[in-house]
Amino acid sequence: MSARGTHVGVVSLGLIGGSIALRLVERGYRVSAWNPSAGVLAEAADRGVEPAESIAELCAAVPDVLVLANPLRAMRAVLADVAAHLRPTTVVTDVGSVKGPVAELVAEAGLAARFVGAHPMAGTEASGFAAADPAILDGARWALAVDRETRPGDFLRVAALVTGPLDGVAHPVDPRVHDEAVALISHVPHVLATELLNLVGRAPVRRLALNLAAGSFRDGTRVAGTNPRRTEAMVVENAEWVAPALRVVARDLTLLADALESNAPVAEFFDEAQHVRAGFVGASAGAGWEAAAGVSTDLVLDAGWREAVLAAGERGDVIAAADPALRTLRLQAQG
Amino acid sequence: MSARGTHVGVVSLGLIGGSIALRLVERGYRVSAWNPSAGVLAEAADRGVEPAESIAELCAAVPDVLVLANPLRAMRAVLADVAAHLRPTTVVTDVGSVKGPVAELVAEAGLAARFVGAHPMAGTEASGFAAADPAILDGARWALAVDRETRPGDFLRVAALVTGPLDGVAHPVDPRVHDEAVALISHVPHVLATELLNLVGRAPVRRLALNLAAGSFRDGTRVAGTNPRRTEAMVVENAEWVAPALRVVARDLTLLADALESNAPVAEFFDEAQHVRAGFVGASAGAGWEAAAGVSTDLVLDAGWREAVLAAGERGDVIAAADPALRTLRLQAQG
Repeated sequence: MSARGTHVGVVSLGLIGGSIALRLVERGYRVSAWNPSAGVLAEAADRGVEPAESIAELCAAVPDVLVLANPLRAMRAVLADVAAHLRPTTVVTDVGSVKGPVAELVAEAGLAARFVGAHPMAGTEASGFAAADPAILDGARWALAVDRETRPGDFLRVAALVTGPLDGVAHPVDPRVHDEAVALISHVPHVLATELLNLVGRAPVRRLALNLAAGSFRDGTRVAGTNPRRTEAMVVENAEWVAPALRVVARDLTLLADALESNAPVAEFFDEAQHVRAGFVGASAGAGWEAAAGVSTDLVLDAGWREAVLAAGERGDVIAAADPALRTLRLQAQG
Repeated sequence: MSARGTHVGVVSLGLIGGSIALRLVERGYRVSAWNPSAGVLAEAADRGVEPAESIAELCAAVPDVLVLANPLRAMRAVLADVAAHLRPTTVVTDVGSVKGPVAELVAEAGLAARFVGAHPMAGTEASGFAAADPAILDGARWALAVDRETRPGDFLRVAALVTGPLDGVAHPVDPRVHDEAVALISHVPHVLATELLNLVGRAPVRRLALNLAAGSFRDGTRVAGTNPRRTEAMVVENAEWVAPALRVVARDLTLLADALESNAPVAEFFDEAQHVRAGFVGASAGAGWEAAAGVSTDLVLDAGWREAVLAAGERGDVIAAADPALRTLRLQAQG
């Protein structure tokens, strides 16, 4: 997707929507946006974003890609508005942290065949347009959802945006598999960080405990510094996967407590984790994905492309580039 | 405690014992040591530590302070040996991560009136003399145990060592309160970091989850990179406090899962933690304790000193200096 002539619309200029809009302006893309607060829209206009007064006006500007960066709680209303005004050449995507519930709302709004769900694994503890910063997108990993309704041309357009001007790499995922995975690597860690603080806060020895607290407590509670409303929303929106994962953790901790109280062996609990950590540390070492990059192959999106793309994602391949004109994805194996 | 003429003995030159010995040598103290492995003892001798061939020989050298830096599993045997050979002018201390079980073993060995338990909140993910490094002690917070048997002169000598050449600050603590506190701020965080890895490792979506994992997972699992045997030992040794804390966490997570599945409100879970985190971040900000230092007062250790020192610890005061000759502790309030 070349900069010249490509036009991206953004609904809602918060931390992520604002960062995307500002990055695309920097790279010479035409960017239009609508935001519920007029003040933010005026600030964005000063920085090169074309303001739209409504979602209808934004759709009428006929962006090639329309990015829904609004909170999930506004999604049903936004999708109804988009469905009423969308032009046939615009592809719709989003940036939400759950993909299953979004896919259901998109289907309800009759937009399933126009939609490619996305989720950038990027962010900070801050929020709002004032905190928007294109640098948070540098090298970010994105999940790109593939389901039975996804059209290859639309998928290529969104993948080209993510891996081109937004400087990300993309993991092709089934929406429900995505939601289970982020429950485990993001939502449950946020809950445990919060619980660690609650545990100490309620203890009679709280003062001494906080005085003695060092690295393990600081690291273990860092993400609990996120706005509690945002953490709550993430967890509630993905309750379907977070709740059962929390029950697994509760069961494992109860079994460990039982073993500790009866002097039963607990070595396995501590050993098991080492393999997982070794794999994770290996995959994340170095300056970024390049450090672990293996063979790359081009995949032409013809019949059977969904299965081929999802199978590549399951192997751990990432999408490093996309060419909508040639209908190819560049898949990069990890070393 | 001035360098000239002061003599410190160290049993076991691992990460902490080795770091203490090397730091004291750097500062001009006379240091003797015994270590079960002769190779390590020879290396230490090359760096200025006087080797002893046995605990009996180490005791016979009559150190002013004898630091037991051996693992807890060896403590009963070491204490029996020390009890048989200790000279009347030597004070005994340790560096273990639990204080209650050590106090019991010390009492069994008949050494309660010669002992001041200590615990430096310092360490790395490495272990052994090869990893010893005096820098890990810079500014470290130590817990110093005070119980009914503790003698003020002994407490002053150990406090002077910790706050003098070892460059630490000391929190006076009751041994059992200490163990409850470190369960909450160190042992439970280690267990949760391990459980996060186990949770992901067992999930069918493991590969994708690790591919998408970003900051919250990296921070939440960092301490699980510690040697699993050392983590296991810490947790098992403090099972009395860790097990009930794990049951509290299991109960809280189950209640949260219940609420998520029944659409009940969960805001309180996420709000409660914010106050605790604010207190912790405030207390740890800046370059160290100096940043939060408030009024300092000198306390003379006469009748009622145990209650006065423990009350200061409960207020959050730290021991910044100690003068055995004047029998005073300098207590520093936190700003």
